[in-house]
Amino acid sequence: MAALGAGLEAIFAPRSIAIVGASQDATKIGGRPVELLRRFGFPGAVYPVNPRATEVQGLPAFASVEALPEAPDLAIIAVAAEAAGDALDACAAKGVKAAVIFSSGFAELGEAGLAMQDRLRATAQRSGMRVLGPNCLGAASIAERSIATFSVVLENGLPPVGPLGIASQSGNIGSYTALLARERGIGASRFITTGNECDVDIADAIAFLARDDATTVILCVLETCRDAARLTGALEMAREAGKPVIVLKIGASEAGQAAAASHTGALAGSDAVFDAVFRRAGAVRVHSVEQLLDLGHAAAVLGDRLPKGRRTMLLTASGGFGVLLADAASAAGLSLPSPSAETQRRILDVVPYASPRNPVDATAQMSSRPAILEAILAALLEDDACDALLVLMSASLNLPRLRSVYMPTLRAVREKHPDKVVMLAVHGPADAVAELTAMGFPVVDGVAPSTQTLAGLCDLAAARLLPPLPAPLPPAPTIDGAALRSEAGAKQALAAAGVPVLPERVVASTAEAVQAAMAMGLPVVLKIVSPDLPHKTEVGGVMLGLDSAEAVAEAYDAMLARVRAAAPAARIEGVLVSPMMHGGTEMILGAKRDPVFGPVVLVGLGGIFAEVLQDVAVRPAPVNEAEAMAMLRSLKAFAVLDGARGRPKADLAAAASAIAALSRYAAQHAADIAEIDINPLLVRPAGQGAVALDALIVPG
Amino acid sequence: MAALGAGLEAIFAPRSIAIVGASQDATKIGGRPVELLRRFGFPGAVYPVNPRATEVQGLPAFASVEALPEAPDLAIIAVAAEAAGDALDACAAKGVKAAVIFSSGFAELGEAGLAMQDRLRATAQRSGMRVLGPNCLGAASIAERSIATFSVVLENGLPPVGPLGIASQSGNIGSYTALLARERGIGASRFITTGNECDVDIADAIAFLARDDATTVILCVLETCRDAARLTGALEMAREAGKPVIVLKIGASEAGQAAAASHTGALAGSDAVFDAVFRRAGAVRVHSVEQLLDLGHAAAVLGDRLPKGRRTMLLTASGGFGVLLADAASAAGLSLPSPSAETQRRILDVVPYASPRNPVDATAQMSSRPAILEAILAALLEDDACDALLVLMSASLNLPRLRSVYMPTLRAVREKHPDKVVMLAVHGPADAVAELTAMGFPVVDGVAPSTQTLAGLCDLAAARLLPPLPAPLPPAPTIDGAALRSEAGAKQALAAAGVPVLPERVVASTAEAVQAAMAMGLPVVLKIVSPDLPHKTEVGGVMLGLDSAEAVAEAYDAMLARVRAAAPAARIEGVLVSPMMHGGTEMILGAKRDPVFGPVVLVGLGGIFAEVLQDVAVRPAPVNEAEAMAMLRSLKAFAVLDGARGRPKADLAAAASAIAALSRYAAQHAADIAEIDINPLLVRPAGQGAVALDALIVPG
Repeated sequence: MAALGAGLEAIFAPRSIAIVGASQDATKIGGRPVELLRRFGFPGAVYPVNPRATEVQGLPAFASVEALPEAPDLAIIAVAAEAAGDALDACAAKGVKAAVIFSSGFAELGEAGLAMQDRLRATAQRSGMRVLGPNCLGAASIAERSIATFSVVLENGLPPVGPLGIASQSGNIGSYTALLARERGIGASRFITTGNECDVDIADAIAFLARDDATTVILCVLETCRDAARLTGALEMAREAGKPVIVLKIGASEAGQAAAASHTGALAGSDAVFDAVFRRAGAVRVHSVEQLLDLGHAAAVLGDRLPKGRRTMLLTASGGFGVLLADAASAAGLSLPSPSAETQRRILDVVPYASPRNPVDATAQMSSRPAILEAILAALLEDDACDALLVLMSASLNLPRLRSVYMPTLRAVREKHPDKVVMLAVHGPADAVAELTAMGFPVVDGVAPSTQTLAGLCDLAAARLLPPLPAPLPPAPTIDGAALRSEAGAKQALAAAGVPVLPERVVASTAEAVQAAMAMGLPVVLKIVSPDLPHKTEVGGVMLGLDSAEAVAEAYDAMLARVRAAAPAARIEGVLVSPMMHGGTEMILGAKRDPVFGPVVLVGLGGIFAEVLQDVAVRPAPVNEAEAMAMLRSLKAFAVLDGARGRPKADLAAAASAIAALSRYAAQHAADIAEIDINPLLVRPAGQGAVALDALIVPG
Repeated sequence: MAALGAGLEAIFAPRSIAIVGASQDATKIGGRPVELLRRFGFPGAVYPVNPRATEVQGLPAFASVEALPEAPDLAIIAVAAEAAGDALDACAAKGVKAAVIFSSGFAELGEAGLAMQDRLRATAQRSGMRVLGPNCLGAASIAERSIATFSVVLENGLPPVGPLGIASQSGNIGSYTALLARERGIGASRFITTGNECDVDIADAIAFLARDDATTVILCVLETCRDAARLTGALEMAREAGKPVIVLKIGASEAGQAAAASHTGALAGSDAVFDAVFRRAGAVRVHSVEQLLDLGHAAAVLGDRLPKGRRTMLLTASGGFGVLLADAASAAGLSLPSPSAETQRRILDVVPYASPRNPVDATAQMSSRPAILEAILAALLEDDACDALLVLMSASLNLPRLRSVYMPTLRAVREKHPDKVVMLAVHGPADAVAELTAMGFPVVDGVAPSTQTLAGLCDLAAARLLPPLPAPLPPAPTIDGAALRSEAGAKQALAAAGVPVLPERVVASTAEAVQAAMAMGLPVVLKIVSPDLPHKTEVGGVMLGLDSAEAVAEAYDAMLARVRAAAPAARIEGVLVSPMMHGGTEMILGAKRDPVFGPVVLVGLGGIFAEVLQDVAVRPAPVNEAEAMAMLRSLKAFAVLDGARGRPKADLAAAASAIAALSRYAAQHAADIAEIDINPLLVRPAGQGAVALDALIVPG
């Protein structure tokens, strides 16, 4: 594999471009780039290659790649799938630095197409030429006027030159993002769609943009991930470069995941794991193209001036809109502190009938005179509890009189409070929006979008404080076979890894059982030990609450008889005696292998919480104790652990420590273990620890 | 109170309008309606009233209302709050039919303002004149060009004439709705904002629109409800008229509710109860102005052709967009069935590389020729599992070539399948959208908005099948004081009302306790009976699982001693003996008084489900058994009752019957009872019933 992002300058800033399969017809995929390069004024050489023409759209054409007067930096290949392999080989032979293959009919069609695609990949790897596609819409650089795409959204023009880099696996969604950017006057630097990713993948695109001077914010549309290490590596490069990455990852729903798997031919992976990967890498996820653009644009406008926290003051000229805005801000996860008494007084000083709490309703007086507006804005911005101010202006700027109040006042406020975050929710007109944006205000149209964007900015700010990624663990020695054979073996292995388990003994006779029980203290639990019986309860292989020597002896004999009757073929290696524990909250801990990201660790409350309500936290393994604590806190039922309804607080630190230990073990033995279940982990009241009462390791 | 909607024709279709406080300055609130009436060509007489002018904006002015040459149908009052009372009295004396009071400074400012507002209300009631406001933005009728508003959103023009009636308590949100309608070319009939509602309230507005021939769909913005019976009555009138009501009710969050209560000065009421009221009345709730307009417009375009169910086929030309659309459709609650094998074959016949499952990705081939598009659309529409088809066209219609394929094909499809619901997600251009809308397609811009709108149409269709509202219950005789005094009394009263309780006895001696226990069968529970001890457990007044005569005798004595020590002053009326029940799911049933809608009934699973996860269903009381069953099904934890993880199915019918019985009791005794708690209601496995194990009735 090529180094992340290596060689992509030949795609984004080529000095010369050949179009293999160039067409006279500007609506054809082989004609469109010729037309677009000319229309938008690409300054370099453009070489149409077409064996049946001497001239294409007014440019001299060449019969073959071999016949070109020089090795172009970039070749666009727009021929039938069957001819693409030969064309790419010709490019490699000529010394072309990078190729973009528009042609479809490869891996997306199954076996036959996959073989053809493998040939493209082999050519790329052999020659060192970077190859984008196949089955992609290509790439474009706005400032360079380098248009290696046939995307129809460029028909009506390019976005303005600006700092947003758009990297998309989906050609159509990427294109639509560029279209919306153009319509809204939002500036973009580069645009790239990676399609089937025979060579250049989305990680290359992100990595290139992370190092690209023309790009300060990276917008990413993700359908799948074919190489987890490359994706996380690229996200880490962006984070090190201080460039926000905003991800529209599609396939959030089951129906969407099924569609994505069928569409991309790649494994879907768990959407929750993607979420966790983005969170760890400091990338912020959105769920629509509109949010992608709103947040990316706002992040680009703000640069380093991100909100220091989620405490947001809301300002409107309308009580009703204030309520709507408060609803939306709450839904977006912003917090709405009350302004200080001093702030409220300052507001009432200028507008006596204002509602000075949060949301602040300054009534129509707010826009009556600049001095009033400025006083209100200053009062709110100077409040210690104000991390960000969101001003809802709805359609006010369409009225010249209001505009004449708002614009100079806002300009003055920016000069006076250059470090403050003031988000404006504005519904047109476009020139006022552009003017406010130029002043340095993030401007979003709409109540919910403005609150969601502000919340996204808070997420980006929080992501800057993330610790660096943990160093990878050294691989552990080969796993002990005993760990895979029985509960006792699993517990021993997990205990060695740092997961607390009960003192317990495997015994082989009634007398031994009684002796062990009396030694560890009554009451005890007996469980059958057998590599053939992973579900012990179903064969009567568990006896609880045995509180006398007689009860232990009786239970031992009865259990063995019952299990032998129920599962005559099972190998029985003994009986596990362990103390019976009371008091605490039962949790489920687990680890499994995600098809994309490898080992992951999961935690939820026991019983219906995890299984019916699907209230489970999942992260790529390993996690450290702080991440494990964050997993616990992210559970909807966290209050149950945290002392809700007069319950004792659970020993969260012990639970987090067990999660972290399990995650390290799972990560180190990822090659040998398909799944680990600790069910239950009994989390006792604070200070009393946690303990795994049962454990199962499934090899694979 | 005036009959619902009575007399509002004088506001919406006046033959003549006086403006009291008419101003020369067209930007002032007394000048704006004069200017707007002239600009938009109101055909009737316009009478400026201004004691200091003989002419206002070119119209002859009158010194007073008395001096007017006739009694105008409508008077607009745009004077200071202090002068509004006299102005309204003058209008009443002159015989004006209705007045709109723009002036602010009334109830929204507290006591002094409230007194002035009460005078306005008294004048309205005495004279029979309908009065809109004060502190409102007024009303307008688009077709009649009757503009009794100073809303700035009309500065740039009116919406086109059309079937949407806009009724809003919030002046600004109502105005913004009208503004968006104009920008999007969506037709409106009337626009009314009710402000402080001294006389005309939102229920009047809804009721008028329900009977208004110019209106087929009612959009409602609700901040609060000052009269529950009027609101539900008006919603019922709309339902009887077959007119969809779409409600943007603000104050969904705690922060929003607090702001709404402070803004309107009215009690907030529980947002969940509003939800339940809307659901029962068949009104569909949305959460943004954009959704309000999208759904209202789509409902108006479709008329009676609503989807028969939620089974939706998704069609795109892009795999990525298909995934995004599937995510959004899932989030909106649509179901995505797989097309039949026959349908899939028909699609693959015309586009061999299509992905024929749902979402259907027909690739760019979809728009290559009309015959292909038509074949795909026909295949999907003729599939039995297709209640609605959603076609994502994103920005395709901006390209002339694609437009030339889509438009005639879609026209033909409408003619061939006139009854089918085909929702189009289209991003411009405006003239294509208008053309498609004229063909009868609901058209929405955006992936999430199109799925949300389609889901809203499904909700509207489901609302048509709702049974009529239940007849009100006859009031019950005065509540028996015993019910309020103790658990035993509460249970007797609830048992008489149809809530199942255990056979149990109140005893007064150890011997009686033992006798009762042996008669009803062991094990039993003992509980202290005292009007002074609502929380029995805290004083040691509950003993469980007594399984012998000795245990009962011992427990009886020990409990009395403990309770007397813990609460020496408490009056002890005996000890309740009841059978100890095992096996079943504990639920919490309750009733309380909502400040707006009166008695409501609540149900949730016991323990942390209701209290930590807030997984509770609430409805206005009474509910019938079917509604009670719907409440159970709406719980997130419903699976726990429905046999999740191998549990026995709970006796849902018995639980529903208990809920309905409790709700009837609560409704009948609403005047005397603040709260009823049944905690727990033990719901036993199917066929074994449910039983209230504890009950408390709080008077008030």
